[in-house]
Amino acid sequence: MMFSDRLVDAVRRAGAPVCVGLDPVLEKLPAAVRDGRDAAGAIAQFCRGVVRAVAPHMAAVKCQSACFERHGAAGVAALWEVQREAAGAGLAVVLDAKRGDIGISAGHYAAAARHSGAHAVTVSGYLGMETVEPFLKEGLGVFVLVRTSNPGSDAVQAARLGDGRTVGEMMADEVAALGATHLGQQGYSDVGAVVGATKSAEGRALRGRMPRQWFLVPGYGAQGGTAEDIRALLDGRPECGGGVLVTASRSVIYAFDAGDRAWEKAVTRAAIALAGEVAAVVG
Amino acid sequence: MMFSDRLVDAVRRAGAPVCVGLDPVLEKLPAAVRDGRDAAGAIAQFCRGVVRAVAPHMAAVKCQSACFERHGAAGVAALWEVQREAAGAGLAVVLDAKRGDIGISAGHYAAAARHSGAHAVTVSGYLGMETVEPFLKEGLGVFVLVRTSNPGSDAVQAARLGDGRTVGEMMADEVAALGATHLGQQGYSDVGAVVGATKSAEGRALRGRMPRQWFLVPGYGAQGGTAEDIRALLDGRPECGGGVLVTASRSVIYAFDAGDRAWEKAVTRAAIALAGEVAAVVG
Repeated sequence: MMFSDRLVDAVRRAGAPVCVGLDPVLEKLPAAVRDGRDAAGAIAQFCRGVVRAVAPHMAAVKCQSACFERHGAAGVAALWEVQREAAGAGLAVVLDAKRGDIGISAGHYAAAARHSGAHAVTVSGYLGMETVEPFLKEGLGVFVLVRTSNPGSDAVQAARLGDGRTVGEMMADEVAALGATHLGQQGYSDVGAVVGATKSAEGRALRGRMPRQWFLVPGYGAQGGTAEDIRALLDGRPECGGGVLVTASRSVIYAFDAGDRAWEKAVTRAAIALAGEVAAVVG
Repeated sequence: MMFSDRLVDAVRRAGAPVCVGLDPVLEKLPAAVRDGRDAAGAIAQFCRGVVRAVAPHMAAVKCQSACFERHGAAGVAALWEVQREAAGAGLAVVLDAKRGDIGISAGHYAAAARHSGAHAVTVSGYLGMETVEPFLKEGLGVFVLVRTSNPGSDAVQAARLGDGRTVGEMMADEVAALGATHLGQQGYSDVGAVVGATKSAEGRALRGRMPRQWFLVPGYGAQGGTAEDIRALLDGRPECGGGVLVTASRSVIYAFDAGDRAWEKAVTRAAIALAGEVAAVVG
């Protein structure tokens, strides 16, 4: 099954194109999870709890690889365990690793991602679309970094080419061109794009350039993205979630008080609220 | 000790600005290393043997993270083991991970890299120089991807901006600007650049824009880079290796016949040959 089709199914099941970001930081975990466990064990336990708490309400999870890699080999083992659990729970699994290599190395990253339980990976395209192809060959979906919302990104992504496009728009055109040869049955491409939620004017232009792409939209809620920003990115197919996958992390995974023993319930409530909010935006 | 100063020392000790690339692929390892070991164990054993075989003749090693990550948690454990052995042997250790994230995530990647034994990391700057700063804060050096030699890179890195610069040159200017505030005692910056060996005309222009940068130059020898390509990148300071770190992988680490039990000797001979060749080019 192609990733783009899997994501359509997952969005329909959840009732909204929503994704929870698993960016676990040890200090923020519930006391009940931390007690008696080493760092990687606590993170695995916490993330598996979040997966179970949100699975009926979310289309996808996005695992921030750095948060796991931080803990070395044990952290990587925890990442694979969490991703496999999420896939088993019916969620689409996005590995947010922002890998960006070529040739044999890209092939190794792709093989590792597939074994880890991921269905798709975030990828940097600075080395060109050669970076992307090995992931597609492994049967994975890809979200190429096109336009991000951090302040420092403007210096690179908003730089203007001689032909009038920004660097971000040029990357969008590369994504659309490669993506056109990797379309699923629902009309979406397995080559998607990361488009930050806080650039709505540019977002609209990017949607024009990438009509067949899934947009992975990080930073909703606590990180500043608003409903208005999301609207700018929609592709006019509300039955498919508008082609956006809206991701929130902190506002969902830390929706409890530190000492709360029934923390999973607070996470479930936050997931339901997020799904309802995004469903209303998508229409 | 700043990375840029560490690298000057290592280049002087080795007598040439040379680096061996550890890109281990299971199928290419000597039979004597593979026998009776699992994949990650064989790779660790092989790489530690290469480190011991080349340490007196090389300034640095560059570990291709993908080749280790391919084997999951055990592969990451092998990577850390190899890097710590290389650091202990007096080599400068570059983790070729091409990471490219921001904020807390970049901080996690940086912390992981430091714990892994690396002194420097390759980084993608597509998200801007925010990607780089967390590595510097951890006391690591950085090589930012500026211009690579793979065919597909032209579509992005050779695209021309309205002001006449290519995207690669724009990235070079970002590197030089950030790097100017992170200079070591020898006058080199801890913010270096990855510049492919097969683009000598562009390489000369890039050296003009980045006079204080260490250039990590992959792809020498088996992958097509020539002495002429290297000359274009030199900074006029032969006593510091000309500011280039020339990397070869396959021509050194696989310089043996498959059944050779004394394979380390062949690797040592290849390392000595590489160092002599590059020393002659640098002058």
